[in-house]
Amino acid sequence: MERHILVTGGAGLIGNAVRCALEAQGRKVVAIDLVERTREGLPLVACDLTDIHRLHAVAAEYPLDAVIHCGAHSGPMVARDNPYSMVQVNVVGTANMLELARIHQLRRLVFCSSTSAYGDTPEGPVPEDVVLRPTSVYGGSKAASEALLWTYWRQFGVDALAIRLSWVYGPGRTTDCVIRTMIEDALAGRPTRLPFGQDFHRQFLHVEDAVAALLLALDATPPPRRIYTATGGTYVTLGEIGEVVKRVLPQADIALAPGPDPVDEVHRRFDISAISRDLGYTPRFDLETGIRSYADWIAARAG
Amino acid sequence: MERHILVTGGAGLIGNAVRCALEAQGRKVVAIDLVERTREGLPLVACDLTDIHRLHAVAAEYPLDAVIHCGAHSGPMVARDNPYSMVQVNVVGTANMLELARIHQLRRLVFCSSTSAYGDTPEGPVPEDVVLRPTSVYGGSKAASEALLWTYWRQFGVDALAIRLSWVYGPGRTTDCVIRTMIEDALAGRPTRLPFGQDFHRQFLHVEDAVAALLLALDATPPPRRIYTATGGTYVTLGEIGEVVKRVLPQADIALAPGPDPVDEVHRRFDISAISRDLGYTPRFDLETGIRSYADWIAARAG
Repeated sequence: MERHILVTGGAGLIGNAVRCALEAQGRKVVAIDLVERTREGLPLVACDLTDIHRLHAVAAEYPLDAVIHCGAHSGPMVARDNPYSMVQVNVVGTANMLELARIHQLRRLVFCSSTSAYGDTPEGPVPEDVVLRPTSVYGGSKAASEALLWTYWRQFGVDALAIRLSWVYGPGRTTDCVIRTMIEDALAGRPTRLPFGQDFHRQFLHVEDAVAALLLALDATPPPRRIYTATGGTYVTLGEIGEVVKRVLPQADIALAPGPDPVDEVHRRFDISAISRDLGYTPRFDLETGIRSYADWIAARAG
Repeated sequence: MERHILVTGGAGLIGNAVRCALEAQGRKVVAIDLVERTREGLPLVACDLTDIHRLHAVAAEYPLDAVIHCGAHSGPMVARDNPYSMVQVNVVGTANMLELARIHQLRRLVFCSSTSAYGDTPEGPVPEDVVLRPTSVYGGSKAASEALLWTYWRQFGVDALAIRLSWVYGPGRTTDCVIRTMIEDALAGRPTRLPFGQDFHRQFLHVEDAVAALLLALDATPPPRRIYTATGGTYVTLGEIGEVVKRVLPQADIALAPGPDPVDEVHRRFDISAISRDLGYTPRFDLETGIRSYADWIAARAG
């Protein structure tokens, strides 16, 4: 019997897209989240990442092959005044996945880490092997999870890989995202005025490229590294993003003040040569194509 | 009213010594551990590091100034087949201390990290700022705790310092320790034969030097770093240790085979110039003095 891929965070931006991509490949999936249905009505198994008995009950009901662990508080802006929840959901939640993988001898665990684990970076291009200096407990929770993942591999041979995803945008993203703001304003005929960002760099990653990186990690023969960075391959300012949005939606009226995003890290360009070489990852979405896909999705939902 | 220093792991090697050193300075201490008395009969508050309500009850009963957090599974040989317990006690236990420090606005938190957080090191002398590659979940739990500590400082200003202690020996150590084995064998007139270690380096740290480093960290004006390494300043093989034991106890009959300790990391010499410069730490115990103090303690207990 073909066993299941467990996808955590199945109601979220990345988890939902991973689940749909796996099902489109004809693979058996069990997707969990806190709720019983996705926004689109797909069924989920309601299971908290910290509910240990229930996790093992899921593993008993759906024999597991591997895990793609997307479930987490998904950014430094979430639970900002409750860092302990960040520890429980993100770090203990990952430890619970590592234990599932160890106890049930799963083939592989793919963990959605984040470029927030880097925090303050050295000059770019930034390879994976630098000292991590995260600036938020969110970033710290990803760095801490990676330390556990690394040592479960070293001590117990759990075949776990971490992919540090940069800022994910595209169809399905409904939480804080400057691209979504620009698109929604343009579609509604409103101007976009931001008090920061004209000269602030961000490395956007289209959700479908994030999914591609995770699926490559799921199926790769064991690669030489345990931790890879995935970005969309671009390094642009939010001001430049505004220009791309105007090419996609000529009615957009966008103006940004200079300065960094007050709740985001200042990152140099990340080096994605390792994931390209070892996992065959190449971002497929240039920014204009990606923003058009996001604008189409937002327009369809609004219509 | 002078507030208390909370010492965790008060029944353990380091916590007990820290508590006694603080009390010898005339300071108010509340020491917690799983048990109600130390081996020597000193009272402890029985409190599990993961029992959140009880931790806050302790903080309510003994208004706190600062924490020295020694409580943990104390090495890769502990709970070796139960990594989740390592996560709960060591990582969540440290997160609980960070929350106490954040919520009660404590002056400082000093965390006993470990050189096990380094795992495989580059060539020495090894500074603090290298990529951590721990080889055990124990080392991973220390690296993960440091990541949380670092970000509680960055995001919430919790004044937390981590001291990476190397292998601690000396009076009070009753768990696995090759020096204790050599001393006990010599005192009992038994030969010591070890299947490894003649050429295996270890960086021993006398417990009183470990205490000194932690107390310096407790009281220093906020230093430029958050993470420091403390060793005894030596870098010797277990074979050389055997020679020192023979100088202290001429009746000792010690022979070691070559090769590394199968459950310890292979470490290069750690650079302790940062803790020396910033905290004024200098190891006071040379190996012969330290081993003599340990032998005296073991002989007194046996007598």
